[in-house]
Amino acid sequence: MELYTRIKESFDKQKFMHHIGAKLESVEEGKVSISIENKGQLSQQEGFMHAGATTTIADSAAGYAALTMMPEDREVVSVEFKVNLLRPAAGTKFMANAWVVKPGRQLTVVEAEVVDLDSGKLVAKFQGTMFSVSSGEAE
Amino acid sequence: MELYTRIKESFDKQKFMHHIGAKLESVEEGKVSISIENKGQLSQQEGFMHAGATTTIADSAAGYAALTMMPEDREVVSVEFKVNLLRPAAGTKFMANAWVVKPGRQLTVVEAEVVDLDSGKLVAKFQGTMFSVSSGEAE
Amino acid sequence: MELYTRIKESFDKQKFMHHIGAKLESVEEGKVSISIENKGQLSQQEGFMHAGATTTIADSAAGYAALTMMPEDREVVSVEFKVNLLRPAAGTKFMANAWVVKPGRQLTVVEAEVVDLDSGKLVAKFQGTMFSVSSGEAE
Amino acid sequence: MELYTRIKESFDKQKFMHHIGAKLESVEEGKVSISIENKGQLSQQEGFMHAGATTTIADSAAGYAALTMMPEDREVVSVEFKVNLLRPAAGTKFMANAWVVKPGRQLTVVEAEVVDLDSGKLVAKFQGTMFSVSSGEAE
Repeated sequence: MELYTRIKESFDKQKFMHHIGAKLESVEEGKVSISIENKGQLSQQEGFMHAGATTTIADSAAGYAALTMMPEDREVVSVEFKVNLLRPAAGTKFMANAWVVKPGRQLTVVEAEVVDLDSGKLVAKFQGTMFSVSSGEAE
Repeated sequence: MELYTRIKESFDKQKFMHHIGAKLESVEEGKVSISIENKGQLSQQEGFMHAGATTTIADSAAGYAALTMMPEDREVVSVEFKVNLLRPAAGTKFMANAWVVKPGRQLTVVEAEVVDLDSGKLVAKFQGTMFSVSSGEAE
Repeated sequence: MELYTRIKESFDKQKFMHHIGAKLESVEEGKVSISIENKGQLSQQEGFMHAGATTTIADSAAGYAALTMMPEDREVVSVEFKVNLLRPAAGTKFMANAWVVKPGRQLTVVEAEVVDLDSGKLVAKFQGTMFSVSSGEAE
Repeated sequence: MELYTRIKESFDKQKFMHHIGAKLESVEEGKVSISIENKGQLSQQEGFMHAGATTTIADSAAGYAALTMMPEDREVVSVEFKVNLLRPAAGTKFMANAWVVKPGRQLTVVEAEVVDLDSGKLVAKFQGTMFSVSSGEAE
């Protein structure tokens, strides 16, 4: 299956991506980008995008970057990740760009950055581990 | 101001908490719990709650646990956090329980766990750093 | 093999533990403690124990806590970990206490704390993931 | 003071760097490299360099990368960091290269990688937060 199509099919099953308004922007081997627009629904108490929303698109992009390097019958789950929030996510549109640092049969190490498209500045840096599972299996 | 009221006022300003259906469950000095119900809108591709939603309530609970130990004129922002996803978040209702490990004038170290209330099992463990800012100021 | 003996044999092969003067203090199923004395050789520029030394004993204790819950023919390697340094490690003797949060066939999630035995205060909190490998195999 | 000299003076006070045989290799604004040789004394039970040693040079390089961007009267302490161990550190000589992701008056976010110089392969990826303190003060 074509790589974009494969990731898009899995992405479309993620109701949480739909719920927060995230869009799959691009897919290459080892690299995935996801965008999100904050129309207010994603804000924390000061009006900036919530760290949880920032992290969510970084995690999804990172997971799919890992999945592009796994065999077709696999799905991906997050083992763990760490995020540094670099400045307030003050803009209205953001892009999470993720890439694979080290692919592996079971564990894939990934990174992602989240950019505020209004200012062009980095708002978050993400580093984590993804696990390859059979579709339908988890753990 | 009474501690619960103070945290509730900030929580209610977090539109993202409302958007995902999170509820502030309890507030004590250094301890905050937030619950969430997955009616499908929070799911990833396999039907389990998305790691991003799990992380979001852990982060909010952890931030508010830190805020309970800061002076009344302060607000809290997340500096960084790390989450281990322990098993699929297969249930329908979850509770994030957060506590302060080390309070500080500027930096507060926090932990949180997320429990699947259907099974009683831990689905995530969170460790992070919160920063005290003046209300209205950030970074 | 008796649990303490099994862990001690692996610990004694860790030349780095010997080099920094670490001692295996106690071993139970899912729990391991390692102590270290800072006679100056472990200091950073201000005279406190270096974050790297603090992390090293937390990591070793955490790895061995995981190993106590793996079959006898397995060895353990660190996949990843995260440490929060809570205050200067000003004392002369420290204890890392580690415990298993979630055992698994392949991945085990662990936590550890490092206590300054002079003051009784916590100097570090550790959370990480260990991987079970065949003895002699790695990755 | 010249940048290399300033970092070298602080590095030379770190007795732990001396104890493990680490060398300050290069210093630029926002970038520092530290090397280490494993003559056996840094090994874990399988003969590879211990994750604690790998982390220690990444942490020192990252702290000094942050320090290059702080005023001359400041010192640096590690707030927290996270490391992914990507493959066994099988070589005999390693280089930690660290760079600043986001400088700040108080908090500086840093990354580092550790390369096995025998194979040219990445063995670890590090992401963390450094804190600026007055010399002599800590916490």
